[in-house]
Amino acid sequence: MRSCYGLAALSQGARLVPWAFERRELRPNDIAVKVQFCGVCHSDLHAIRGNSRFPLIPGHEMVGEVTEIGIEVTKFQVGDAVVVGNIVDSCGRCPPCKSHEESYCREFPTTTYDGIDRHDGSITRGSYSNEYVVKTDFAYHLPSGLDPASVAPLVCAGVTTWSPLHQWNIEPGKTVGIVGIGGLGHMAIKFAHALGAHVIVFTTSEQKLAAALELGADEAILSTDAEKMAAQKYRFDFILDTVSARHLLDPYLLALNLDDTLCCLGIPDRMEFTPVLLTMGRRRLTSSGSAGTLETQEMLDFCSKHNIAADVEVISAADINEGFDRLEQGDVHYRLVIDMATLEAPDGNEAKS
Amino acid sequence: MRSCYGLAALSQGARLVPWAFERRELRPNDIAVKVQFCGVCHSDLHAIRGNSRFPLIPGHEMVGEVTEIGIEVTKFQVGDAVVVGNIVDSCGRCPPCKSHEESYCREFPTTTYDGIDRHDGSITRGSYSNEYVVKTDFAYHLPSGLDPASVAPLVCAGVTTWSPLHQWNIEPGKTVGIVGIGGLGHMAIKFAHALGAHVIVFTTSEQKLAAALELGADEAILSTDAEKMAAQKYRFDFILDTVSARHLLDPYLLALNLDDTLCCLGIPDRMEFTPVLLTMGRRRLTSSGSAGTLETQEMLDFCSKHNIAADVEVISAADINEGFDRLEQGDVHYRLVIDMATLEAPDGNEAKS
Repeated sequence: MRSCYGLAALSQGARLVPWAFERRELRPNDIAVKVQFCGVCHSDLHAIRGNSRFPLIPGHEMVGEVTEIGIEVTKFQVGDAVVVGNIVDSCGRCPPCKSHEESYCREFPTTTYDGIDRHDGSITRGSYSNEYVVKTDFAYHLPSGLDPASVAPLVCAGVTTWSPLHQWNIEPGKTVGIVGIGGLGHMAIKFAHALGAHVIVFTTSEQKLAAALELGADEAILSTDAEKMAAQKYRFDFILDTVSARHLLDPYLLALNLDDTLCCLGIPDRMEFTPVLLTMGRRRLTSSGSAGTLETQEMLDFCSKHNIAADVEVISAADINEGFDRLEQGDVHYRLVIDMATLEAPDGNEAKS
Repeated sequence: MRSCYGLAALSQGARLVPWAFERRELRPNDIAVKVQFCGVCHSDLHAIRGNSRFPLIPGHEMVGEVTEIGIEVTKFQVGDAVVVGNIVDSCGRCPPCKSHEESYCREFPTTTYDGIDRHDGSITRGSYSNEYVVKTDFAYHLPSGLDPASVAPLVCAGVTTWSPLHQWNIEPGKTVGIVGIGGLGHMAIKFAHALGAHVIVFTTSEQKLAAALELGADEAILSTDAEKMAAQKYRFDFILDTVSARHLLDPYLLALNLDDTLCCLGIPDRMEFTPVLLTMGRRRLTSSGSAGTLETQEMLDFCSKHNIAADVEVISAADINEGFDRLEQGDVHYRLVIDMATLEAPDGNEAKS
């Protein structure tokens, strides 16, 4: 086993503390990655507060350097810069896996943390740590020309918004709504703009209207302005709702044209909407969960070509708990990324898996 | 004005009684139809109990004979057998109207009853009456080779199920689920079967399993059998849920394959489902409302070609209230149709519009 350390919630809802643990030795198709940057995702906070397996080490937006390769590895060499996102394995046999949409694996993909390894049954530990060990199929070369810290969020916040925009064929001539301007929303605006759509952003915050335009939106609308919202009826070919808090979907359903789709990335306990709004307009309500290896690679290539990355604020490992507080208050523009070089080895606990 | 009579609910929730009223004289593009058969739709019952304009004359599945034509009418001649469904006018200018999807008119279509006439502001009265006056655009020739009474339900129950099956391209090779075997469900089974799909019916009633197969289903599944329901995972390309009562949608969402659609025709106050089931599988939840003139004509042509009509039980006008009771108890196989020749003129109230 490999001695590692990271930032862990030792119990449900606890603040993160340094913690030593072990990772598996490399299998033939694995690489070891020295984690350099790790994005801070809303779902990290949910996992810490949720019904996870503790101690929990979050983190699934990592950029790092390959330090060791398994005996069968040809895709990477030691010293390569790599990116790893929120899934690290899948069954490999079901139809979604065969078409490289592993996030829809019928046996559920192995998540980067708080998942169960498909081979040894161990609990996966995330990339708020000095090192990660991963199967090469779920690691990607760092796209050229982009700042490494800003690339880290692409493999979760990025691809989670890229995938639906891609699946619903967003292109020039389409009018696309993006609801919310956070970690996901700001990426969605960049992608939709780069894909050539007319992009209209909805935000509850007057201060974010200008920011939306700077990110590439053609219009920004205060969603609390009932009059402006009513004027959006039938305008949209597609709306991507990135807000995780429960909120009424009716204004967005009404804004869709006939046969068009509202895709909600936030997953509340219950979606609040008036069913007849689906009937009137044959509108579709859907959601989308991250993406598989094919779309992830396509997204990274697109980012490299269009010079797209996340807007990040790099913080030190010691500031993670304060970072969560700020994330919760919506005080982040737009993604926190931990500089893992600032992570210090703990000396208080015994290494255990 | 034309003196007419029909069966009316004089107030909310009242039982139907004979009632005299007036209809407009014919406009240049109108026809007068002597109503011969009128289907009994669940929505008639909802309208009687709901927040409608009373006195209310329900009825929007009519077959009859043209008795008079407006001065500009060329589509019909006196003596023609015609069919009229649940919408009788629309704005004619919006994009859905221009593509003859008038049921999605942005200014809302004029419903056959309890609607507001776009020209004189009067309240529309349904076809539980001796005569109906309608614009020719919303009347259709009776399809050849079919029993008139069995055709009446096609223009509501029929087209409401035809439209989504048509929109979602149901064809050979597709596996289609139909939830519920009532007025809508039994038509959906016939259509899906005739379109060449593998048809699987879900019912809560053990007695209806055999009936589903007789109607054309390839399989019939008791939806209360948890084990059988769990075995349906990922099987379906499309599921059409025809049940109007509120029920949990999760088993049907789970039964869909990646990217596939659950279309609910019943419109409860709230749809009960677990949002993450949309995320896992990028599944779509939608609904669909009747159809416009283009699809209605296509459906009637398809029915004529494939010898499809509703399974009906013809009742006399005097039995309508008992009919509603039976409808509510699910004791109808599968659509009641009133023989309007049995409707007697009332002599207790003055004719009024």
